[in-house]
Amino acid sequence: MAEKIKRPKARNYKGFRDTFSEDILLRRKMIETIREICERYGFSPLETPALEYVDSLGKFLPEEHTPEGGIFSFKNPDLSSGTREDHPDWWLGMRYDLTAPLARVVAQYQDLPKPFRRYQLGQVWRYEKPGPGRFREFYQFDFDSVGAASMIADAESCAMVCDMLEALGFARGDYIIQVNDRKALQGALECAGLTESDITDENSQVGVALRAIDKLDRVGRDGVTELLGKGRKDTSGDYTEGAGLDTKQIDIIHAYLDARSDSRTEVCDSLGKLVADSKIGCEGVEELRQIDSHLTDLGYSADRVRFEPTVVRGLGYYTGPVFEGIITKEIVDEKGKKRSFGSIFGGGRYDTLVQRFTGQKTPATGGSVGVDRLLAAMLLLDKKKAHNSCTTEVLITIMDKSRLTDYLQLVQKVRAAGINSEVFVGNGSIGKQLQYADRRGIPLALIAGSDEFSNGEYQIKDLELGRRLAADIEDRDEWLKGRPSQQSVKADELMSKLKELLADYRAK
Amino acid sequence: MAEKIKRPKARNYKGFRDTFSEDILLRRKMIETIREICERYGFSPLETPALEYVDSLGKFLPEEHTPEGGIFSFKNPDLSSGTREDHPDWWLGMRYDLTAPLARVVAQYQDLPKPFRRYQLGQVWRYEKPGPGRFREFYQFDFDSVGAASMIADAESCAMVCDMLEALGFARGDYIIQVNDRKALQGALECAGLTESDITDENSQVGVALRAIDKLDRVGRDGVTELLGKGRKDTSGDYTEGAGLDTKQIDIIHAYLDARSDSRTEVCDSLGKLVADSKIGCEGVEELRQIDSHLTDLGYSADRVRFEPTVVRGLGYYTGPVFEGIITKEIVDEKGKKRSFGSIFGGGRYDTLVQRFTGQKTPATGGSVGVDRLLAAMLLLDKKKAHNSCTTEVLITIMDKSRLTDYLQLVQKVRAAGINSEVFVGNGSIGKQLQYADRRGIPLALIAGSDEFSNGEYQIKDLELGRRLAADIEDRDEWLKGRPSQQSVKADELMSKLKELLADYRAK
Repeated sequence: MAEKIKRPKARNYKGFRDTFSEDILLRRKMIETIREICERYGFSPLETPALEYVDSLGKFLPEEHTPEGGIFSFKNPDLSSGTREDHPDWWLGMRYDLTAPLARVVAQYQDLPKPFRRYQLGQVWRYEKPGPGRFREFYQFDFDSVGAASMIADAESCAMVCDMLEALGFARGDYIIQVNDRKALQGALECAGLTESDITDENSQVGVALRAIDKLDRVGRDGVTELLGKGRKDTSGDYTEGAGLDTKQIDIIHAYLDARSDSRTEVCDSLGKLVADSKIGCEGVEELRQIDSHLTDLGYSADRVRFEPTVVRGLGYYTGPVFEGIITKEIVDEKGKKRSFGSIFGGGRYDTLVQRFTGQKTPATGGSVGVDRLLAAMLLLDKKKAHNSCTTEVLITIMDKSRLTDYLQLVQKVRAAGINSEVFVGNGSIGKQLQYADRRGIPLALIAGSDEFSNGEYQIKDLELGRRLAADIEDRDEWLKGRPSQQSVKADELMSKLKELLADYRAK
Repeated sequence: MAEKIKRPKARNYKGFRDTFSEDILLRRKMIETIREICERYGFSPLETPALEYVDSLGKFLPEEHTPEGGIFSFKNPDLSSGTREDHPDWWLGMRYDLTAPLARVVAQYQDLPKPFRRYQLGQVWRYEKPGPGRFREFYQFDFDSVGAASMIADAESCAMVCDMLEALGFARGDYIIQVNDRKALQGALECAGLTESDITDENSQVGVALRAIDKLDRVGRDGVTELLGKGRKDTSGDYTEGAGLDTKQIDIIHAYLDARSDSRTEVCDSLGKLVADSKIGCEGVEELRQIDSHLTDLGYSADRVRFEPTVVRGLGYYTGPVFEGIITKEIVDEKGKKRSFGSIFGGGRYDTLVQRFTGQKTPATGGSVGVDRLLAAMLLLDKKKAHNSCTTEVLITIMDKSRLTDYLQLVQKVRAAGINSEVFVGNGSIGKQLQYADRRGIPLALIAGSDEFSNGEYQIKDLELGRRLAADIEDRDEWLKGRPSQQSVKADELMSKLKELLADYRAK
């Protein structure tokens, strides 16, 4: 009797997923667009490893939902058994963003031409609770200027993301870039009596206050008041310790957060008055004024980039201007439910991140585009359009196995004509072969047997036709006009006919 | 007194590296070429996660140089403290290839249209001893047909890699694809008296014999004889246990390995005679005969795809045809040393890999292109050509900070004309700005101050000119003809002049 074999179950690790053709093709198009614009602005590519020493990565993730510090880390297997756990090489971690590795690179290669303007597309990994639309592995597209003290670099970050979103098909008004300044915000906190100087320290009173403000859109104005004061119990009963400020202090902070306006100059004027007594606050407002001026010169007004005093950004390392890009267009999902996509871009200035390594202050600023969230939005926006979800354009069915030579010579001719094509390499009848083509989304099938090869004539079956007949897509009726579902074509007209039938399909 | 702050040292983890612009751009071009051809042959993209449960990955790496099984693995942090170590979810591992995850995907999504023809570009991680040109993180480009019993799929794998290499600029004769068949090889071992049936078991006598044969190019014919026999001591004194075969048995195996010929038919005929008494051996030779026939139909003769009885391929999961692609052209490196790049492609048929999960035999075949090794070869082959190593084409220098509005409006105009451009966002004199452009490899710099803006005239400085004067590149002299190093251009001719100067640069 055969022993019972223990087989592994085929499954994904929690929070990880596989991505198939259609999503990959749309993402590729999206990334090519983003990359082209990024290069247009003077950024060049960089790639860094998936694994870093944990001491290089630092601890900059917001603490919520992040068991064990929010990263996947493990002991460096190279270390010999006698090594102590406080050895700097002890822990390896999978990168959780692309900014910390960039800081490491700039510190490591001291002779890089500065400003170092690089972009990087890559996956990052976070050990967080997975949820709907929330994965532990996702793509980021980052661009940064290191060694760039000028606020032009900050203004350009915002301008460039506008260009990217519009190139991807988002209309002006469907998105907004919001800008604030951590120094201005710190100035408001100073005026409220919070004078600790290190705003990058998350455990300081300033840090707790910043986190409270950051929760505005989740907990509302009253929730922020509680979090700035004694503390707050949420609906689940969980209690969050407050920053311990009194009413007068909280009012000053609210005055800052309330200084909203459609005019960037007005925001600067309001904030300027509020933080007038704080040196750092005034510095922050001056940064905003410069960004306003540069944005205007570059041609971006407040309908695209507005100043928004409530923006904090979760990451602890920001030291000046911070930005956030939001898709404001409401998108209806497959179930007819309105979905808000929220933030698809975030960034800011982090003048101390390289300093962690070198001890030298290095001005740096940049941002990160949430590729996967943007893709999810685009997939929903695009769902009424027919997609090129399959790369194969023609399936050459095999009817008569004694004519393999003919089929193989034919497929090479079709390929040589620049058409993506395959012969059926599985087992099965013509019916099964056509079903395969249909399920995969291959638009055309070529049918030929001995008679066809002898007569030099082929049958082209238009599978895309059937799919469009069945589908509720915008351009269906125009597309269907005058297309037969099957037609006979002479050998010498085959390539031109295939190209003609594919032309419209490819255009989508 | 300031406390001494402990700063992390900026460093890469051993065997990992950063990749900068020039290599990334060349690799991107290379990958686009490979991908296009892969889609031409009917493969569609797939992406799988970096992390997998280790039981899904299986143990298919060759054992040498692979501490702890050759993969980076760690305990699943999701498991609660009471979980036993034999829980199937206990270990997570970073993928070491793209084939094991593919098998997992096919088993997990049972309703995928078959054959499932997918390609995947991705990084893989191996916990091996790093060395020169040997990294622990590298790219693979895999393509596979799962559910494809036909030898057409195997023949196409080889044909497609020929197309890829020629599209990348390798001339016919500069590379060779070598094919063998594990069943034929097993037949030879059977005829030599080794009758264990599971050739995928690395610890069987057959497994030890296959590993011995696989070392032919490193240890030579006599070394293989020793490894098939009692064992072998290498120059360092390390001893490798042998397969324990006697002289007569070893002679039979050598007869197989010696059956080399420039004619595929001749190889099949010789092997057919040698393994005539083995059923599995005859099956293997029949597979080779079919591949020969399909290759001929597709138009690939033995100058591109030859049969080579010595090819084994290290991975344990192959069950039939195996392939290996080699760059045969000798390449001279920067130091004038001849370098052999060896294998840049490997693959074969693995009919039992999906079965690990499902219990059902699923015919599958495919291959993997070693992107990084191929890139290294191309970098050396290409070194005499001028590269577009920088994506930025024009630096707009800032001479007069009071004219920022003019500079910013100018850079947007240049970008709108489709030219990659940036203003200098760092600090420094015009000299320092030009030095930055030069070091980064930006070909053109635009110089303008108050006078220029008033007169509507700009200075274009051709930095590429200086670089080409200094460089020992093939097309230097033709390129330099009649180019001034600096010229004055009217505002209304600026874009056309920039495009004209960049045209030649871009063509490279």
